[in-house]
Amino acid sequence: MPEQTAYTPTGRTVPTRSRERASYDRAVVHSILDAAYVCHLGFIRDGAPVVLPTLYARVGEHLYVHGSTGSRPLRMAGQGDPGLAVCVTVTHVDGLVLARSAFHHSINYRSVVVQGIAHPVTDPEEKRVSLDALVDHVVPGRSADSRPANAKELASTAVLRLDLAEVSAKCRAGGPGDEPEDLGLPHWTGVVPVRQAYGALVPADDLADGIAVPEYLARFPGPDSS
Amino acid sequence: MPEQTAYTPTGRTVPTRSRERASYDRAVVHSILDAAYVCHLGFIRDGAPVVLPTLYARVGEHLYVHGSTGSRPLRMAGQGDPGLAVCVTVTHVDGLVLARSAFHHSINYRSVVVQGIAHPVTDPEEKRVSLDALVDHVVPGRSADSRPANAKELASTAVLRLDLAEVSAKCRAGGPGDEPEDLGLPHWTGVVPVRQAYGALVPADDLADGIAVPEYLARFPGPDSS
Repeated sequence: MPEQTAYTPTGRTVPTRSRERASYDRAVVHSILDAAYVCHLGFIRDGAPVVLPTLYARVGEHLYVHGSTGSRPLRMAGQGDPGLAVCVTVTHVDGLVLARSAFHHSINYRSVVVQGIAHPVTDPEEKRVSLDALVDHVVPGRSADSRPANAKELASTAVLRLDLAEVSAKCRAGGPGDEPEDLGLPHWTGVVPVRQAYGALVPADDLADGIAVPEYLARFPGPDSS
Repeated sequence: MPEQTAYTPTGRTVPTRSRERASYDRAVVHSILDAAYVCHLGFIRDGAPVVLPTLYARVGEHLYVHGSTGSRPLRMAGQGDPGLAVCVTVTHVDGLVLARSAFHHSINYRSVVVQGIAHPVTDPEEKRVSLDALVDHVVPGRSADSRPANAKELASTAVLRLDLAEVSAKCRAGGPGDEPEDLGLPHWTGVVPVRQAYGALVPADDLADGIAVPEYLARFPGPDSS
C-alpha cells in the first residue's frame, strides 16, 4: 500500500482556532520537522505539565529524542510498560507581523505538534541509527566525522521513539490582516522577517594545528541560510 | 522588604541532570525571558500533555500569555476556580557544539522553565497593560504606534497571568568537553554560533505612500543583532 500523503486528523489534532492554518500534509510536516533540531517535549510529572527543550531527529515516520538514562522523562518512559504520554512541539518563527491595530499583530511561524506515547528504544541497531540521526540532524555529515559512542556511552544514553501518527502542522505567512476601517491609519505596517543565522566557526581552544574545517562545515548550513 | 535576588529552588525546579547548569538568579531568569517572545506553553488536556507555541511578555514578577477566548488553554483556565496548571518554557539556541566524540556533541543554550497555575486576567487595567506589554515585548515602542484594542477586540481576547515563583534557568556555554583520551583524534572540533537574525522590513501591500519607517523599527532590534 502506498504511503498516504496526509496524517488523519483526530479530535486532538484539530485546532479550535484558526483551522485554516492547520495542515496534515505529510510533506509539510516533514519539512518543518527536518528544518529544526530543538523541540519542546511535554510530559506529565506528579500530575503537572513539564516542558523541556531537547534535541530530536526524524527517521521516516518516527521521531527520536535522547538524553541521559538519569533524566526524568527518559527514566519515566522506561519504567512503565505503556511508555510515556508526550507532546513534541517544533516551532520556527519566520516574521513579526505589524498591523495597524494592536489586535491584529501576529507572528509568521511554522509549527508541528506530535502527540503520542514515547517508548524507549531497546534494539541496539535502532539505537545506533537514531543516535547517528540525532547528530546528523543538527549538522549533516557529522556522525561519520566523530568518534562513535562506546559501550559505556551507549549504556548511559537513553533514546525515546515516538511514532508520527497524531500530527498536525500550523503555519501563518504573509502580511497583516487589518480591518477595512483601519486601512487609512497613519501607522507603518508590514513584516519584519526573522530567521536562524549561523556565525563564523569558533575552533575549540585545544584544536590541534593542521586540522582543516571539513567540507560539510565550510558550507554549513547552506548558501541561503547564513 | 527588598526583592530577593534569587528564586527559591523547589523539588520541581532542581534538575536531575547537569545541576551545574541550573540557575535561580532573578537577573539571569529575567534576561532570558526578556530576550525572547515565543514560549512553549504546556498544559494537560484530557489527561495528556499538550505543548503550544505562543507569545508572552514579562511584567515584573508576572508572565502574561494571551489568545482568543475560544482557544483551549485560555478557555480551560477560565473554567475552573483553581486556574490551569501550566509550564512555560523559553529557549534560546546559541551554538552547536561539535565534539570529537559523538557522545559529547551538545547545544549551547539558555532556557527558563516556569511552573505554576495560570489565572485569567479579569481586571481591565491589568488586561490593558499586559496586552500593551505583549506587543512591546516583540517590538519595543510598537503599542504606542498602533490602534489600541476596542471593546469588542478586548472582549474576544483572553489573557492569562502566571506568577514567577517556581522558576529555574538552565544554560550551557563554551566549547566541547571531550574526554582526555580523545584529544588526539583528527576531527575538527568547536562551536557553530547560532542567533536569531532579522531581515529587511517588508512593507504591507496596502501601505500608503508617504508613511515612513518609524525610528523604533529603523534600528530594530539593535545594532548587534542583525
